[in-house]
Amino acid sequence: MLQVSLADQYLIATGQTRLLEVWDALPPGLFPPFPPVELPGGLDGWLQRGGFAQTFFLGSEVLGLKFRSPKGHVLQAGGLTVKNVQGYDLVRPFMGSFGALGEALEVTLRLRPGRASIFLRRPGELSLPPYKPRFLWQEGAHTYAFHFGHPSEVTRFREVFGGESVAQPPDYTPLFPNGMGVGPGGLIDLRFSWANGGAAPPIPEVFRRLAEAL
Amino acid sequence: MLQVSLADQYLIATGQTRLLEVWDALPPGLFPPFPPVELPGGLDGWLQRGGFAQTFFLGSEVLGLKFRSPKGHVLQAGGLTVKNVQGYDLVRPFMGSFGALGEALEVTLRLRPGRASIFLRRPGELSLPPYKPRFLWQEGAHTYAFHFGHPSEVTRFREVFGGESVAQPPDYTPLFPNGMGVGPGGLIDLRFSWANGGAAPPIPEVFRRLAEAL
Repeated sequence: MLQVSLADQYLIATGQTRLLEVWDALPPGLFPPFPPVELPGGLDGWLQRGGFAQTFFLGSEVLGLKFRSPKGHVLQAGGLTVKNVQGYDLVRPFMGSFGALGEALEVTLRLRPGRASIFLRRPGELSLPPYKPRFLWQEGAHTYAFHFGHPSEVTRFREVFGGESVAQPPDYTPLFPNGMGVGPGGLIDLRFSWANGGAAPPIPEVFRRLAEAL
Repeated sequence: MLQVSLADQYLIATGQTRLLEVWDALPPGLFPPFPPVELPGGLDGWLQRGGFAQTFFLGSEVLGLKFRSPKGHVLQAGGLTVKNVQGYDLVRPFMGSFGALGEALEVTLRLRPGRASIFLRRPGELSLPPYKPRFLWQEGAHTYAFHFGHPSEVTRFREVFGGESVAQPPDYTPLFPNGMGVGPGGLIDLRFSWANGGAAPPIPEVFRRLAEAL
């Protein structure tokens, strides 16, 4: 972890920072764009896979990125200045690039405020509940949800979702000794079923051309 | 205009489609990601400039894009299938690329539902009101706001913002006979002051490399 700005609600961390390290470093009331779980590869792996379990659009939560391209060039995309809303946007292509654009060295994430939060699980397969939490996924025979926001919203979500509280952040890294990829497996979110072995979705030709250029 | 899906809430249109053509083609209750104004260059120009007057993140509203690269290649990025949430995302770099990646030939836009809408203007310079509308900009001595959503939200916005109703969609194209660019001018949104002449923000080196690869 390199820097947390409470006033401007962002953090800057190395790509190797583990997800639960980020959670440990944040004060109550500020939330990163991932749930309190551990996944392989830290922030770099999480970004390369396009996130985990979010029900919102992740693109607006990653403000900047320094990454090493497959050719070994170190490139800066986005950042904290107003220039990042102007366009010329190479942050987004990196997200969900499954390694094709290289590895993240430094990540700038937006933090979101919330006065309350709740971590629940209930038996049963993943399905989108009528009241959408910030994060939703299935692991084994349970569906998990993490939500934060205004206390009344969080209370409402607890009533709608039911289930029981999760006390400890799960560590899913042992499920993926050979890397976390896409394929049949016991960990499922709204985008993918996640499998041991690191398989990536097929790369479109136009994206391969981009990767070769960087 | 090529296709509007009311059930799935998207539209597909050519890059040359004018913004008010889109408005005219939509039924009440479905809204595009731009306010009811005319701007130079139709959907292609609007995308290349990274949108106009939106107060939300535009990246999640453009689902797909067919574009002609500077080298003349026709490339498809994103689309309607679930694959687009997987990553490998070249839609976002195009948005706000100010021509560096070429021109949009066909655009797939998400439509958002709203049971009510309101178009207001009040005297004074642009400042973000306490209750944020979907679109906000200044033209001359007035600030304009367009909002849609639940009727109670729209009523609340009207009370907070004040001003008077705008009856006719403004046509701003006469302000930009030589193209719509960034610089001192009378049309201002939360990102830029827009100037006649088509000037673009400076292109970072890494983005230039991407442009050359496509």
